[in-house]
Amino acid sequence: MTFPYRFSRLAEGMQPSPIRELFPLIRRPGMISFAGGLPDPAIFPVEAFADCASQLRDAGRVALQYGATEGLPELVEQVIARLEPLLGRPLDRGEVLITTGSQQAMDLLGRVLLNPGDVVVVEAPTYPGALHTFRNLGARFAAVPCDGDGMIVARLPEIIEQCRSVTGAPPRLIYTIVNFSNPSGACLSRRRREELAEVAGRFGIPVLEDDPYGDLRYDGRPIPSLAAIGGPGIVHVGSFSKILAPGVRLAWVAGEPGLVRRMVLAKQGSDLCTSTVDQLLVAEYCRRGELDRHLARIVEHYRAKRDVMAAALVGALPAGRASWHRPGGGFFFWLTLDADSRDVFARAVDAGVAFLPGPAFFPAGSESVGEAVDPAPFARLCFTFAQPAEIEEGCRRLAGALEASRG
Amino acid sequence: MTFPYRFSRLAEGMQPSPIRELFPLIRRPGMISFAGGLPDPAIFPVEAFADCASQLRDAGRVALQYGATEGLPELVEQVIARLEPLLGRPLDRGEVLITTGSQQAMDLLGRVLLNPGDVVVVEAPTYPGALHTFRNLGARFAAVPCDGDGMIVARLPEIIEQCRSVTGAPPRLIYTIVNFSNPSGACLSRRRREELAEVAGRFGIPVLEDDPYGDLRYDGRPIPSLAAIGGPGIVHVGSFSKILAPGVRLAWVAGEPGLVRRMVLAKQGSDLCTSTVDQLLVAEYCRRGELDRHLARIVEHYRAKRDVMAAALVGALPAGRASWHRPGGGFFFWLTLDADSRDVFARAVDAGVAFLPGPAFFPAGSESVGEAVDPAPFARLCFTFAQPAEIEEGCRRLAGALEASRG
Repeated sequence: MTFPYRFSRLAEGMQPSPIRELFPLIRRPGMISFAGGLPDPAIFPVEAFADCASQLRDAGRVALQYGATEGLPELVEQVIARLEPLLGRPLDRGEVLITTGSQQAMDLLGRVLLNPGDVVVVEAPTYPGALHTFRNLGARFAAVPCDGDGMIVARLPEIIEQCRSVTGAPPRLIYTIVNFSNPSGACLSRRRREELAEVAGRFGIPVLEDDPYGDLRYDGRPIPSLAAIGGPGIVHVGSFSKILAPGVRLAWVAGEPGLVRRMVLAKQGSDLCTSTVDQLLVAEYCRRGELDRHLARIVEHYRAKRDVMAAALVGALPAGRASWHRPGGGFFFWLTLDADSRDVFARAVDAGVAFLPGPAFFPAGSESVGEAVDPAPFARLCFTFAQPAEIEEGCRRLAGALEASRG
Repeated sequence: MTFPYRFSRLAEGMQPSPIRELFPLIRRPGMISFAGGLPDPAIFPVEAFADCASQLRDAGRVALQYGATEGLPELVEQVIARLEPLLGRPLDRGEVLITTGSQQAMDLLGRVLLNPGDVVVVEAPTYPGALHTFRNLGARFAAVPCDGDGMIVARLPEIIEQCRSVTGAPPRLIYTIVNFSNPSGACLSRRRREELAEVAGRFGIPVLEDDPYGDLRYDGRPIPSLAAIGGPGIVHVGSFSKILAPGVRLAWVAGEPGLVRRMVLAKQGSDLCTSTVDQLLVAEYCRRGELDRHLARIVEHYRAKRDVMAAALVGALPAGRASWHRPGGGFFFWLTLDADSRDVFARAVDAGVAFLPGPAFFPAGSESVGEAVDPAPFARLCFTFAQPAEIEEGCRRLAGALEASRG
């Protein structure tokens, strides 16, 4: 028995998430997965986090009740303490909003800023989840090419002008992952951050600085955040998903109070408030100093895995058929292959290793303004989830798949 | 320093939530609040819930990781076990989606079904949070009057026809709280449920059956759910917020698989997945049989409070100046006053008691199709949150405010 549902225009355009489409393949027995962008469950701070649950006894009547849409004050305080050094200035509570993961931060910002058909500037390649969120709101995309230093900002003015001439309006938002981008692993150089802030300010286009990986730096020294360099048009988003655990859906937005107020109105209609239980547990975890200790541990842990994959790729991949930059942080290697990554993927899965092929990371031609990048040669490999021996074996399997694919 | 943000058309129409607007007043020292629709924190199962947190040690690597958008299998199983008797049929997993509170269920359904300008049929009065969610999506409203048996379904066909003749299209959704409605407390009679299912089916309009209060029945016997009576055009939404705790943001949708799949795509763009930590804790709480024990306790507890408020209203309110039905379940008394509730509210707050005046529960004239109800005489009083002595004193204060207001 069915019902003749008539879906909204936006729902008609919704597409399955590329990574979730692969789940049945990834879950095959013996499969080594570099596909999902998942933290290593072996390093989750299970005991220390569970210890914080004693707070549920002391503060259960708060934790179980509705909370303020803006966030639990205890957590907002912890987040502000982390943000102030990063943004280089004191923050008021009205500039911060706790969200149900950074996906919700993107969604709320999109709902507040975008009309259907509006253009969002993204990096090529960019995070598939951002494409998903903005696509669900009816956005179109203009893609800026990247190199090993991140977005090639010098191309941005012409891309903005092209958007204006093609659509009659400038882009309404620039989305960027400046630190150890998903998927490219690139870190936007200081000079480019200054240029990006300048160009965005000059054209009056807000920037969403999505920064889930900034604390996961394995080499070199931090570069000031875009929000520290730029003005109030920069909306900074951070998350506990990669530095603590994605199972608590907790992230934060820092932005101009007038913008944050609108996002609060949007959030009231979306989910009223973020889980008070999650917020209480994580606030307690931070208050105990556990997060800083955990961060030191995972940086060591993931650096070692990054090094394992770097050596395994060099040792295994056939010479001249793949190239990459060694990421200085984050979760990912981004490979350029001399074969179609979908073809390599099919062979790789047969050989027992999964990754995410290039097309997931680029807007489709039909939703793009301006030139599209050919996604065929690219592959994202997550190095944080698999264990070291699996990383080595997975790279060997990948090499076999690449060798079997025509160059 | 500000930035010239240009908000989306939908964001321009967003309005503050009426209850959150009142927070500064409600939080004054000595204020007795009947305003928020809050569970009684004194009866939260703090110890039993905190005991379930031992699961975080056993299943921490699952609880801290990303989960499936559809929901944690352990919780989906518990929800299905609750739903099957209510819906009167076996359910597949593909018919169920766990959401971040029922507010998100409404939002996702709205995003999947509504284009801006589409009309949602609501009861007059209805839940302000539903108006908020659908308004944020650009919906307009057609209101169906209610009496002590809930929506006057006999009026529905003419209201649908009127919508069609005014807007050129039928309403795209009917939103109803059939059990102990927020705010009216009314329970839709079985006959009217059958009529509603018939009319909705005949016109091909989906129905959102929002059922947060169905388990909170203090008198009489349950009436079959709309989803049990009607066909696959009924989307059933339930929640843990009122029967367990709103601090875990957990609710569920049961609907046709094709509809649920679209809502999953919308949810992937909204928050990826619901808190795995919340889901694990609540699944364990249900698995231990705690929820059924807790439900038995809160039904007793809230019935007694309902009786306290019923007696206090009869004893305190000046004869002939207010009328109401004694609710057979849920959280609320809905009063019709012979004065403007906003005027009474101002005096009541001065006297130290807060409630929610009528206008919050009706669409504004500017967003309505068809006739609008004058919201002035109405007042919603929540009886679950305040303690018994406060309920009595609060009703005396309210009586004073009503006496001071001109009839």
